[in-house]
Amino acid sequence: MQETRLDTARIRLARQVIDPIFLDTPLYRCEALEPQLGCSVSIKLETANPVRSFKARGTEVVASLLADRGSRAVVCASAGNLGQALAWSGRGRGLDVTVVASRFATVAKLDRIRALGAGLELVDGDHEMARERAAAVAQRDGIRLVEDSLDIETCEGAATIGLELVDARPSFDTVLIALGGGALATGVGHVMKALAPEVEVICVQPQGAPAMTLSWRRRRVVTTDSTDTIADGVAGRLPIPAVLDDLLLTADDAVLVREESIIAGMRMLHDHAGLVVEPSAALGIAAILEDRDRFAGRHIVTIVCGSNVDADAYRRWIGAAGLHRS
Amino acid sequence: MQETRLDTARIRLARQVIDPIFLDTPLYRCEALEPQLGCSVSIKLETANPVRSFKARGTEVVASLLADRGSRAVVCASAGNLGQALAWSGRGRGLDVTVVASRFATVAKLDRIRALGAGLELVDGDHEMARERAAAVAQRDGIRLVEDSLDIETCEGAATIGLELVDARPSFDTVLIALGGGALATGVGHVMKALAPEVEVICVQPQGAPAMTLSWRRRRVVTTDSTDTIADGVAGRLPIPAVLDDLLLTADDAVLVREESIIAGMRMLHDHAGLVVEPSAALGIAAILEDRDRFAGRHIVTIVCGSNVDADAYRRWIGAAGLHRS
Repeated sequence: MQETRLDTARIRLARQVIDPIFLDTPLYRCEALEPQLGCSVSIKLETANPVRSFKARGTEVVASLLADRGSRAVVCASAGNLGQALAWSGRGRGLDVTVVASRFATVAKLDRIRALGAGLELVDGDHEMARERAAAVAQRDGIRLVEDSLDIETCEGAATIGLELVDARPSFDTVLIALGGGALATGVGHVMKALAPEVEVICVQPQGAPAMTLSWRRRRVVTTDSTDTIADGVAGRLPIPAVLDDLLLTADDAVLVREESIIAGMRMLHDHAGLVVEPSAALGIAAILEDRDRFAGRHIVTIVCGSNVDADAYRRWIGAAGLHRS
Repeated sequence: MQETRLDTARIRLARQVIDPIFLDTPLYRCEALEPQLGCSVSIKLETANPVRSFKARGTEVVASLLADRGSRAVVCASAGNLGQALAWSGRGRGLDVTVVASRFATVAKLDRIRALGAGLELVDGDHEMARERAAAVAQRDGIRLVEDSLDIETCEGAATIGLELVDARPSFDTVLIALGGGALATGVGHVMKALAPEVEVICVQPQGAPAMTLSWRRRRVVTTDSTDTIADGVAGRLPIPAVLDDLLLTADDAVLVREESIIAGMRMLHDHAGLVVEPSAALGIAAILEDRDRFAGRHIVTIVCGSNVDADAYRRWIGAAGLHRS
């Protein structure tokens, strides 16, 4: 294939600097989901760790490089999961971590960022404004800016999930990947194309935050003016050109799903898999729900990428319909 | 120490016949729980696998022995998790599996037992009646009866969790173990006493199903006439003498907790750890909640042993208070 920015050998090396607590995560068939989905479903579970998302795979790579170089401080913009992960990885290495986030971000994520000792700066706007502000902080203070999906370490960290999937047996047909900035999709996608090219790589994004999917379809950057989705972890408006280039080489398809499907996916994962997931982590199930024929009879892996939710919002998402049904 | 029925070398061998999908489960600090509990808390998560409980560690050992011997059929009594696990382990080895359960058992557990292809026989009584009936079926059909906690393979399988805990670092002070029939407590307890005797082993049982705890305290079998607890996985009335003997050698303490503490524990694990757990799996947190002073400042491991719940009952347990609070 044409070359992405990623390198499989470097991804293997990344595994050596990531705290093992984030590696070799559970991968297992979840047969209880299958009657309603019409296909075989395996879960790759990225939530059973100290930050409840896959993002620490990347921040471990970043923070270990910074510590090796004697850096003392780092800043990132985050919808919540990257910030929490960077706070965790930085704390263990004596780094001062600053996280810039939207004041509309998920409260539970912001609380955990603070609890992990990071400095938290809120902006009165969306995630793209937080990105701008983080860049300004980095320039002002002369410290490293971590840009999710653009910085190759964030992609390499996410890509280690791909290595674990490739090692899995029995093999599977398709991997469904939540698409936001693109680190997860390009990282895992790169490994699939390099080591398991027979596996179909499908990215899933909410209809309410479709910028990267539209960009992938039109093969050029498409931006949007706003986002409207509960899937806060993937709600970007301004795709990064270099990431789009990689996504064009690594994704076989990119699909958009409705909010009601995301909620239905969260509810299915709760009721039939016993998993609390954040909306972004239900995108794969949502994609199956919206196109059962496409996936019928196939073996699908869906990466459950995070579980950081506000408890009361989550109760509403999974609650009402279930209580009516009883 | 005095010798239990378990043997550490055999437990190490058990790891070799258990499907790796059930081994090396996540073990991680959950700092978000700690402010309310006043101690360090690590989760050993036994729910991210195809049967959502630790029980398959034991049934894998049983079923692999049976398959090696050319057996074709096996029967067990189960509150639901053992039956589901034996159904899974037996299916993969061509064994006919029969599960006898109370008709009052958790519906989700019974559904999964059927879905995994096992024969399910319901008795119009509690788990102890199911045990009687399973023994009768075994005798009638001349097939192997698997008796949870009595059969050493079930203890050896559970004990592999102990090996994983001992390998963990940083070390911890106390392990909290749900106490039902005793396989988990004697298995993990044996490994702790053999390989990490400095770790305190505390068993936790509901006040509504206290038979084994009362037996441990009085150092002789104490039975009860009934049970009254939502923690269906540990609701026995008739402790097995040989298991009690082992428990007397492996447990440092056995405590009883109230139903309201179990529900509070489930809710905390949901809201702060993002984990769906069944009542038995919240016993450890319940024990901390009832005696914060005892655990203050210590590092506790709690084994989250299962997540098989009826979705609507679970919503009630975690639901109402949360919605009021919002």
